[in-house]
Amino acid sequence: MHIRLYNARILTMADDGEPFAGELWTADGRILFAGTDAEAADRRREHPADVPAFDEEIDCNGDLILPGFKNAHTHSAMTLLRSRADDLPLDKWLNEQIFPVEAKMTEEDIYTLTKLAFLEYLTSGITACFDMYLTPRSIARAARDAGFRMVQVGAVNNFSQSPALVEEMYRELNGADPYNSYMLGFHAEYTCSKELLGQIAALAEKYQAPVYAHISETAGEVAGCKERYGMTPVAFLDSLGMFAYGGGGYHLVHVTEDDIRILKDRGLYAVTNPGSNTKLASGIAPVSDYLKAGVPVAIGTDGPASNNALDMFREMFLVTGLAKLRDNDASSVDAIEVLKMATVNGARAMGLDDADILAPGKRADLIRIDLQAPNMQPVNNIRKNLVYSGSKSNVRLVMIEGRIKYREGNFFLDESPEDLYAQAERIKARIDGK
Amino acid sequence: MHIRLYNARILTMADDGEPFAGELWTADGRILFAGTDAEAADRRREHPADVPAFDEEIDCNGDLILPGFKNAHTHSAMTLLRSRADDLPLDKWLNEQIFPVEAKMTEEDIYTLTKLAFLEYLTSGITACFDMYLTPRSIARAARDAGFRMVQVGAVNNFSQSPALVEEMYRELNGADPYNSYMLGFHAEYTCSKELLGQIAALAEKYQAPVYAHISETAGEVAGCKERYGMTPVAFLDSLGMFAYGGGGYHLVHVTEDDIRILKDRGLYAVTNPGSNTKLASGIAPVSDYLKAGVPVAIGTDGPASNNALDMFREMFLVTGLAKLRDNDASSVDAIEVLKMATVNGARAMGLDDADILAPGKRADLIRIDLQAPNMQPVNNIRKNLVYSGSKSNVRLVMIEGRIKYREGNFFLDESPEDLYAQAERIKARIDGK
Repeated sequence: MHIRLYNARILTMADDGEPFAGELWTADGRILFAGTDAEAADRRREHPADVPAFDEEIDCNGDLILPGFKNAHTHSAMTLLRSRADDLPLDKWLNEQIFPVEAKMTEEDIYTLTKLAFLEYLTSGITACFDMYLTPRSIARAARDAGFRMVQVGAVNNFSQSPALVEEMYRELNGADPYNSYMLGFHAEYTCSKELLGQIAALAEKYQAPVYAHISETAGEVAGCKERYGMTPVAFLDSLGMFAYGGGGYHLVHVTEDDIRILKDRGLYAVTNPGSNTKLASGIAPVSDYLKAGVPVAIGTDGPASNNALDMFREMFLVTGLAKLRDNDASSVDAIEVLKMATVNGARAMGLDDADILAPGKRADLIRIDLQAPNMQPVNNIRKNLVYSGSKSNVRLVMIEGRIKYREGNFFLDESPEDLYAQAERIKARIDGK
Repeated sequence: MHIRLYNARILTMADDGEPFAGELWTADGRILFAGTDAEAADRRREHPADVPAFDEEIDCNGDLILPGFKNAHTHSAMTLLRSRADDLPLDKWLNEQIFPVEAKMTEEDIYTLTKLAFLEYLTSGITACFDMYLTPRSIARAARDAGFRMVQVGAVNNFSQSPALVEEMYRELNGADPYNSYMLGFHAEYTCSKELLGQIAALAEKYQAPVYAHISETAGEVAGCKERYGMTPVAFLDSLGMFAYGGGGYHLVHVTEDDIRILKDRGLYAVTNPGSNTKLASGIAPVSDYLKAGVPVAIGTDGPASNNALDMFREMFLVTGLAKLRDNDASSVDAIEVLKMATVNGARAMGLDDADILAPGKRADLIRIDLQAPNMQPVNNIRKNLVYSGSKSNVRLVMIEGRIKYREGNFFLDESPEDLYAQAERIKARIDGK
């Protein structure tokens, strides 16, 4: 499959440069060419043999092409729980609403509910997600069947997922197909015994691999860890050798200066989840402090039970907006930084270094954004428009692995939205005993 | 023009009830009937003469119909300034970027740029706006020509708008046509002399009319007023008799308990603008304190130079999210309260009591929301879905004064989006001297 996107403005994210007028060619899942109109003309004239016969040529009408957004923390299958447990304190939310429903979910339910999330990711320009949940094999199957890029992370905890399963998945899912990969990880310090955590750290050592987990999401979690171990979660986990090969933390809202120094020293990613932290009243992450310290920040939606939308545009505005509020400074964390977080940093945090920017040889995971929409006009500054006034309603096309998965409101997956909605309703009815 | 919307779920906002399966009929700009399917069948059987010949009957496919959102504070024509002056402190933003451009804007520019904002309002389900800007006659003409519901408010200040013009507009625009109305108002305490403010208070007395203004948006503004007059802005303005007949304040971020008591005693509306307050780092308004005290809250986008989107879905999520963060309580300001603010309270703050809910005799200003979209599935709770996961991408139809103005991405105004974009680019080029 070869596709040519022309008459576009291309934002490669390879540097801090502005978008340029140009075109982009794909070949079998990879980017073959991304350059200015003049460079494209040169290529055609000087190396005609390098220019493939295109299966489709798309006139982009001056629209923007950029790398797809990377959703660097989520629990996709929790779509079932959207708007089912809102306006509750975290402990009631988790113990009275989330856990009882999750206990009734089957592997097949999770397969279907994960696919339901893919639909929503596509509408928001998200081309890959970093997913922590139960039943990793059925989640990988959903990604393969739908053609959505999925990076799973281990969810080891005292109740439902063992380090042995995580090791098995690590070996099974990495390299098995183009859509799936897998990272070592655990749910959180407060849901894992010290012994379990030691086993994860041993896996990190064995595979020389990064480790991810929920870390320091709430003030209560940090207080609990200090009581148990006399250290913050970041310091305690580091003391176990957990981060010898990198990784990072989801949320990282409540941290100390020493914690930030550890994150920096270990090369860890801070994955911020502002929508979830806002709706659950967890707090505002110190994003500007991370940037100042040189800790790379990526962005996740978290799951639809806590956010409740899987919308990278909403998250991007929240990242910069909450930083400005927290710092009492309207110039804090500007739009350009936020775009980097949502694309390049997300990709690298997820081990998708080959899908971070638009350049020859990189994976063809990209999106087309309508600039001829009222919220994008006039076009004073494209990148600021994207972050400050952009909306999922501006997403016109989403390509993953060189294939068009979403275009002008239509989905190109193996199952239709209507089928997935109907299946989700049946799952809901069964779990509710109806 | 008679339109029938059937196979719908109708959220009248007349009370705290859930949406019901039913239909809605319009007749010449008003709602003729809104009721359950059974009530509609009864009406047809028992009073066939009351059922008009419909010009159009729309199968809503189970989608939601609710009153259009009311944008209770904005500066529409500032579309020109979107993404032109971001990431700056408020004083630099205003003095170095906003004022110099505004000084070059003509009446015709403001006419065009206001219409550009209408497009964006429609995409987000906004059917009316409460607009404070320059050149009220050209703004009223834009509303009349486009068929958009416009409530303007006086912008008296020391530099550019006099109480005499506000009185003239108050007499000229109220009752002149179905789309326009006008309220007394001034820009802010810090841009008006005490003498000017006294003249506005005299107009309030003369017309027994409410008054609106920017009040207590920033901590600096409050400190300045205390220095000048020894009182907070709310207390000072009240001491002038400004609010003898009601009205309200835009922003109201930095207030005291005494201020809140005055707002309550005078029956004032607190119009909150969370997107703008976030992006300009002004602070978080005490929305839950207003609710507890019985001060009605409405929601505004503020202008596109400060927000930068005119998107009621983004504002609704911010209202509840920021309240939860501020109160450190995930149950603070729930979705049902927020929906009331965005519809009923907004309408009443703007003097549009006849467009507040869906009921016979009310103005036919309404929207259709797609429930068959990934971010709305499964449908556990429609109202929570609207506020917590809803998006402007779910708006399928917008009706104002019984006329369809936006439908499935298409606009039905007197000028096309492409023409308005081109005109905005020409205005930009002229102002920039290009």
